[in-house]
Amino acid sequence: MKRKNLMTPGPSPVPSFVREALSREIVHHRTEEFKQTLSEVSKGLQHVFCTKNPVLIFACSGTGAMEAAVSNLFSSQDKVIAICGGKFGERWAAIAKAFGLDVVEMNIEWGASPAVEELKRIIDENKGVKGVLTTLCETSTATVYDVEAIAKITKEKNILLIIDAISGLGQDKLLPDTWGVDVVVGGSQKGFMLPPGLSFISLNDKAQEALKTSKSPKYYFDLNAALKSYAKSDTPYTPAVSLIVGLKEALEFIKTEGLEKRWVRFEKMAKATRQAAVALGLEIFSQRPSASVTAIKCPSQIKSSDMVKALRKQYGLSIAGGQGQVKDKIFRIAHMGWINEQDLIMCFSLLEKVLKDMGHKFKPGASLAALQEVFASGSQSQCSSSNCDIKAQMKI
Amino acid sequence: MKRKNLMTPGPSPVPSFVREALSREIVHHRTEEFKQTLSEVSKGLQHVFCTKNPVLIFACSGTGAMEAAVSNLFSSQDKVIAICGGKFGERWAAIAKAFGLDVVEMNIEWGASPAVEELKRIIDENKGVKGVLTTLCETSTATVYDVEAIAKITKEKNILLIIDAISGLGQDKLLPDTWGVDVVVGGSQKGFMLPPGLSFISLNDKAQEALKTSKSPKYYFDLNAALKSYAKSDTPYTPAVSLIVGLKEALEFIKTEGLEKRWVRFEKMAKATRQAAVALGLEIFSQRPSASVTAIKCPSQIKSSDMVKALRKQYGLSIAGGQGQVKDKIFRIAHMGWINEQDLIMCFSLLEKVLKDMGHKFKPGASLAALQEVFASGSQSQCSSSNCDIKAQMKI
Repeated sequence: MKRKNLMTPGPSPVPSFVREALSREIVHHRTEEFKQTLSEVSKGLQHVFCTKNPVLIFACSGTGAMEAAVSNLFSSQDKVIAICGGKFGERWAAIAKAFGLDVVEMNIEWGASPAVEELKRIIDENKGVKGVLTTLCETSTATVYDVEAIAKITKEKNILLIIDAISGLGQDKLLPDTWGVDVVVGGSQKGFMLPPGLSFISLNDKAQEALKTSKSPKYYFDLNAALKSYAKSDTPYTPAVSLIVGLKEALEFIKTEGLEKRWVRFEKMAKATRQAAVALGLEIFSQRPSASVTAIKCPSQIKSSDMVKALRKQYGLSIAGGQGQVKDKIFRIAHMGWINEQDLIMCFSLLEKVLKDMGHKFKPGASLAALQEVFASGSQSQCSSSNCDIKAQMKI
Repeated sequence: MKRKNLMTPGPSPVPSFVREALSREIVHHRTEEFKQTLSEVSKGLQHVFCTKNPVLIFACSGTGAMEAAVSNLFSSQDKVIAICGGKFGERWAAIAKAFGLDVVEMNIEWGASPAVEELKRIIDENKGVKGVLTTLCETSTATVYDVEAIAKITKEKNILLIIDAISGLGQDKLLPDTWGVDVVVGGSQKGFMLPPGLSFISLNDKAQEALKTSKSPKYYFDLNAALKSYAKSDTPYTPAVSLIVGLKEALEFIKTEGLEKRWVRFEKMAKATRQAAVALGLEIFSQRPSASVTAIKCPSQIKSSDMVKALRKQYGLSIAGGQGQVKDKIFRIAHMGWINEQDLIMCFSLLEKVLKDMGHKFKPGASLAALQEVFASGSQSQCSSSNCDIKAQMKI
C-alpha cells in the first residue's frame, strides 16, 4: 500500500481543515458576507507579510503577481537590476525584458547569496537604476538572500526593492517595513498551505507613488484598480472565492501558532534536514540555506531525477529534483507550510531506502538519529533575538 | 431557517461532486498523474467549446483570458472594433485601449444585439480593421449575439473574430469551427459549474498565426508559451491544481448529459423564465434573450437593487441586479451550469413574495404556473434542427 506524501517546495500539502473550506458551497463575491471574509483575510495577510501596507490578492499563480510588480512600477526603458542566481531570479529578468525594461543582470553563482558590496558597485556603475528585483528564498537553489542588507543599499540609493517571497514567506524571516522593502510578492501554494491559484502583492507608500508614473500596458494586473477596490474590501474582477475562503482558515491557523514561533520551528526543521543529509555523507548545496527548503547535492553516481522518480514510484513520496544548470545534480526537500518534523522523519526514512538501493553507502538510520537530535535540542534560531519581535517591528 | 441559493450569472452553484474533488489532497503538477488529468480536461474543454482547436487554461478570472487575447493577437496601434452594448463589450474596449490599440467602438443600445449590416458598414469605413471583439452572451444585458452572422462577415473580410463566451458557453449555442470564430474565451464559474479562478481560451490556426506578429508586452498570459506547454500536457507556470481536478468532474458530467441536450434544456428554462416574468406583468429587457441568463425590467416603482437585497436578506436567494446604465432598472436570473428547473420554481416563488411586499400586483402563483406549463411542453429550441449536430459539425 503506497501512501502519497508531498514534500515539494510548492505545491505543498493542504491540511484537511483548509480542504474542507475549499469544498463549501460557493458564496457570491459582491455580498457583505464575502466582503467580511476579504477584510479578515487582508488582516491575516498583513500579519504573515509583517507589514502595515495593503496586501492585494490576485487570482493567478505567483508569476502573475511578479508581472504585476514589473508592469505597474516601471515603464519601457527603465533600468532595473535582476539578481540572477537561480531560476526565479532569471524569471524576474525575463518578465522585465518582456516589458521592455533595460535589465542589468547581476549574475551570481547558483547556491550563493548576492554579495552586497557587488550590488552596490553595479548600482553605482549603472546610472539611473530604478529598481532591484530579487528573491527572499531562491527556490531553485534553496538559498535565502540577505534582504535586510540589500534593503539598506536600495533605501540609501532611493531605489525600489521588489522581493519575490513566494516560497520563503512564513518560514524565512522578512520584515519589509523595518528593513525598507517596497514590494513583496507571495503565492498561495507554499507557506500559506493552500492549493495554487492565488498570489499576493504588498506595496508601501513609495511603491504606490511609483504606480502613478508607470506607462507599461496592463489591465488584469492593474494595481491602481486593485488598490481602489481594496479600499472597499472588494476586487476589480471576480476573485477566486473558494481559495480565499480556504485562505481565511489557513491564516487563522498561522496566527494561532504565531508567525515568530513558526519561523523558529522551520529554522529548526531546516537545520535538522541539513544535519540529516550530512549524516548520510551528503553535502548541502546552498551557501546560505533557507528555512523553507533544503537543497542537497546528489552522490556523484546518482542522477537526482532518477532518485526523485524512484521515491515517487516506489513510495509515493514527492520531493523536487534540480532545475536548469543543477538539473540531476541536486534534490530539494521542502519544510514549509503544513510540513512538520514527522514528515521529515518519514521523508528521510524513505530517502535512506532509495539511496541504499542506488548504491550509496551510509549507516542505516543515521539521518533519522540526526533529525531526532536536532528536534530534541533547545536550539533556537536567530529569531529568538530581540529583532524578531513582530509586534515591536510593526508598532502594533 | 434561511437556506442559501445562488441564481446569479457567476459565480453559479457548484455541485457537491465537484466540491468533493476540490477538497481532495493536492497533487504535484509535474507528475504523470496530473498530466493525465490535464489531457482529459483538454478533451472535455474541446467538447464544450465545440472545437478541434487547443483550449488553453489559465489560473485567473475570465478578464485575464480576455487580456491574453488582446495582448497576444495585436500590437499597439492595431485597429479593432469592440461591440459595446453592455459592460463586457465595454471591457473589451477598455482592455484594447490599455494595450494601445486603435479601438473603434460600435455602440449599440443595451439589450439589443448588433445589426450585422451596421458592423459591415463600420468595417468598410475603417480601413485596416484587424479584429472584432465581442460577446456570445453579453451578461450585463442577458443578450445573446448572432455570432454566426458576425462570423460570416469577419471571415469574408479576413478579420479575426474574438468571442467572450464566459457566461454563454454551455448554454448558448456556439459552433466556432463551423461558423469561423477564431478565438473563444471562457471562465470556470458559469456553465462549467466550478468556483471562479480558471479561464480558458481556444485559438484556431489563423489566431495561432497572428500570435507570431504581435509585439504587445506579455509574460504570464503569453499564449505562445502556453501552446508550447499544452503540446506536452503541461502549463508554463504552476496551474490551479485543485480547480483543474474539479473541472475534470464537471466536464465528465456535461459529457454524460450531452452538450446538445443541455443547450435544449437551458433554452427551455430561459423560455420558461421569460413566460414566468410575463405572467407577473413584467417585461423582458433583452431584444435577443440568452439561454444562460434572463434580464427582466423591474416595475417602475421598485428599485431592482432593493429587490435583490430583500431577496438575499429575507430568503437567502442571490439574483443579480443591473449594472452600469441599467442599474436599478433590471434584475437578472441565471439558468446556467448546475441550475435546473426546480431552482427556477424556488426562485420565482420567492420573487413573488418580495414583489408582493413591494406593492407589485399580480395573481399569486402565476409565475409558477407559467414555468410548469413550459416545462411540461414538448417545446424544442432551434437546437433540434440538423445544424445542431455537434458530431457532424466537428466531423468526429
